[in-house]
Amino acid sequence: MNKDFNYSNLKLGIIGGGQLGKIMSQKAKKMGFHVTILDPTFNCPAAQVSDKHIIGGFYDKEKLEQLVQESDVTTFELEHVDTTILKELFDNGHSIAPSPYVMELIQNKYEQKKLLDEKGIPVPAYKDVKTPEDLASFGFPVVQKSKLGGYDGQGVQVLKSQEDANTKAIQAESFIEEMVDIDKELAIIVARNIEGEIKCYPVVEMLFDERVNICDSVMAPANISKEIEEKSIEVSIKAIQALDGVGIFGVELFLTKSGEVQVNEIAPRPHNSGHYTVEACATSQFEQIIRAVTNLPLGSTKLISPAVMINLLGEVGYEGEPFIEGIHDALEIPELSFHFYGKSFTKPFRKMGHVTVLDDDINEALNKANKAKQILKIKGSKEV
Amino acid sequence: MNKDFNYSNLKLGIIGGGQLGKIMSQKAKKMGFHVTILDPTFNCPAAQVSDKHIIGGFYDKEKLEQLVQESDVTTFELEHVDTTILKELFDNGHSIAPSPYVMELIQNKYEQKKLLDEKGIPVPAYKDVKTPEDLASFGFPVVQKSKLGGYDGQGVQVLKSQEDANTKAIQAESFIEEMVDIDKELAIIVARNIEGEIKCYPVVEMLFDERVNICDSVMAPANISKEIEEKSIEVSIKAIQALDGVGIFGVELFLTKSGEVQVNEIAPRPHNSGHYTVEACATSQFEQIIRAVTNLPLGSTKLISPAVMINLLGEVGYEGEPFIEGIHDALEIPELSFHFYGKSFTKPFRKMGHVTVLDDDINEALNKANKAKQILKIKGSKEV
Repeated sequence: MNKDFNYSNLKLGIIGGGQLGKIMSQKAKKMGFHVTILDPTFNCPAAQVSDKHIIGGFYDKEKLEQLVQESDVTTFELEHVDTTILKELFDNGHSIAPSPYVMELIQNKYEQKKLLDEKGIPVPAYKDVKTPEDLASFGFPVVQKSKLGGYDGQGVQVLKSQEDANTKAIQAESFIEEMVDIDKELAIIVARNIEGEIKCYPVVEMLFDERVNICDSVMAPANISKEIEEKSIEVSIKAIQALDGVGIFGVELFLTKSGEVQVNEIAPRPHNSGHYTVEACATSQFEQIIRAVTNLPLGSTKLISPAVMINLLGEVGYEGEPFIEGIHDALEIPELSFHFYGKSFTKPFRKMGHVTVLDDDINEALNKANKAKQILKIKGSKEV
Repeated sequence: MNKDFNYSNLKLGIIGGGQLGKIMSQKAKKMGFHVTILDPTFNCPAAQVSDKHIIGGFYDKEKLEQLVQESDVTTFELEHVDTTILKELFDNGHSIAPSPYVMELIQNKYEQKKLLDEKGIPVPAYKDVKTPEDLASFGFPVVQKSKLGGYDGQGVQVLKSQEDANTKAIQAESFIEEMVDIDKELAIIVARNIEGEIKCYPVVEMLFDERVNICDSVMAPANISKEIEEKSIEVSIKAIQALDGVGIFGVELFLTKSGEVQVNEIAPRPHNSGHYTVEACATSQFEQIIRAVTNLPLGSTKLISPAVMINLLGEVGYEGEPFIEGIHDALEIPELSFHFYGKSFTKPFRKMGHVTVLDDDINEALNKANKAKQILKIKGSKEV
C-alpha cells in the first residue's frame, strides 16, 4: 500500500464473520472501503453489514486464497486459521496483516510464551509438558493450557492435585503455567501500523465470569497506580515489537499481588477488552485495525469518557432463536449503548451482544453497567 | 410496537439509501435489527451495509408498498417521497414514522411555515406568491422559495430587485420570505418517540458554502449565550410538538441580529447538522431515530466532547469515480473521524463524505477541522 493508493476503491478482506468482524466491517464501510467476509456461516454477523460474503471455513485453502486474491488487504478477526496457504500468498506479495507468520506463532500459546520470555518480557513461569510427570513440575495447583486451539476459557484448566493430573489432564499438546497470585487482570489494546508506528489504548481491568472463565465486564480506565499503568504500557509495547505485528493486538496482563506485571497472552486482532473503545475513545480499535493494515496513520487513542463494558452472554438454560429480555428498561439507563450481534442462535454463555456505559465518574458507570446486567437476559426459543 | 416485541427479530425499512440511510442502517445493525433499504440506485451507500435492497424510486407506489409490507417499522432518510400509498398503509395500521401525514405537511415548505406560524412559533415574515406582483410585497431584496421539492439550497433564491423578480423568479408554486438580518444560523436535532418523550441535542452553529448555500461545517456547541440556547431549545420543542412528529427532526434556526430566534425550516429525518452526534454525543441521531420509531426509550443526548464537523463536497472541476486527495495527511490530525459514503460518482458540491473532529477546546477543534478541510479534496476521474 503506498500513499497514492486510491482509498475510495480499497477492497478489504476479513477472515471471520463474528461480532469482531462485524464492527470492523462497519468501521471500514464508514471510511468508504469495500469489505468481503470469509466465514462458513450463512448470514453471520459480519456478512449482514458487508459488501460480499465468501462462504467457506477458516481451513478451506481454496476459499482463503479466493479472499486474498480478491482483496487489496486481508486481515483477521480470529486466530484459528490455516496459515500454510496464507504464508504462500504473503510470500508472493499479497498484503495480509498481521502476517500469517505472526498468526502462526500466536496460534501456539507455548511458542508465543517462549518468544516473549526470550525477549525479556515478563511472563508467568511455564514448562512444556512432554511426559505426564511434567504436570507436577511446579507442584499443585497448576494451570494447564493446550498449545493450540484455545479461546474464551477453552483449553485452559486448573489442576488442583496429582489426582487431577492423573484423571483430568488435557491430552493434546500442552504446557503448564504456575498459578499466579493475581491481584487484577488487566488488558491493553495496542495498535501498530506497517511503518512501525505504535499507539496504546488505556489500561483496562477485566472481570471474569468464574463459571466459564469468560470475560464478563471491562472497566476503562483500570483502577491502578500511575506506576502500574506505565509498566503495563511498557511491557505491552515491547511484546508487540517482539512479535513484529501489524494490526490490533489485545494484550492480556496479570497484575500480581506483589505488583508485578506479566503478559498472559496476546490476541492478534480486535479484542473483547477493547469493545469500549467504540464509544469511549477518539478512534475505536475496529477503525484502528483498518488504519493499521491499510498503511494509514493511526488514530488518536484518547479516552473521551470513562466507560464500563459488559458482555451479554446467552443465559444458562436456553438455546435457539434469541429473545432479549429487559431491553426497554435497560435502554432507560443514560449513556448506555446497546450492541446485539445478530446471531441467529443462542446457547449458554455464547457472546450474543454487549453494552457500553459512559459516565464521567467510573463508579457511576459501574453502577449503571451492573444495573443493565441485572436487567438484560438473552434467552432462547427453547429451554435446555 | 408493544414492549413485548422481540427486538432481535425486528425488521426496519428505510426509504432512501444515501449517507443518512447508511449511518442509520449501521446503527440499526449495531442493535441487531434487520434492515431493508428502498432506493433506485444499485449499490447506493446504505445498500452496502444493510440486509436487503429493494431497487425502486421514491414515487414508485408498488415498491413503497413492498417495503412497508415487509417491514415492522418504516422510516425515512429523505422527505421527497410519494405519500399517497404511505397514507393508505399507515391508515391500515402499518407502522410508519414520522407519519406520512407529517411528511406531506413538511414537504410543502409553505404549509410547514403556516402551521408553525399558526402555533405561535416565531418564523420570518412570509407570503404566498399568487401573482407576480406578490414578489414585491416585502420590497427587495427578498427570498423566494419553492413550496415543493427544495433541498441543499435548491429551490431557494434571493431576488435583489424588481428586475430579478421579472427575469429570474422561480416559476413553480412559491412563497416569499423577508430577508432576515442573520447573526448566526443555528440548528438543533430533536428526537421524539411514539410515547411523546422528547430529547434535544445541543444547539449547534452551521456555516455555509456561500457559492451554493450548502452547509459546510457545523460547530457543536454553538457559541451563544445561555439565554439564546434556552430560547432555541424552547422554540424547537414547540415546533416538533406542533407537528406531532415521531422520529428525528433537524430544526434549522435563524438567530437574528436583534437576538430573536426564528424557525427557518424543519427536516423530518436525521440532518447534516447532526452528523457530529456520532462521535460527540452519548447517542447519535442515527441510533436515536431507530429508538424513536421502534418505541424504545430515547438515549441520552449528552455532549461527551465539543466537536466540529465539515462536509466533504465534490471539488469543482471534477466528476466521475471519486479520488480522495490528502487522506494520509488528514488522518494525522488527532481526534479526527473520517466518513466516506461510498458513492461511485462525484460531481461538484456533491456530498461525498464528512469528517468530525473532537477537542476539549472548541477553538482547537475548529483549527483542526479547517486544516482537514484544506488538505482533503474529493476529485473525480474526469475533469469538467
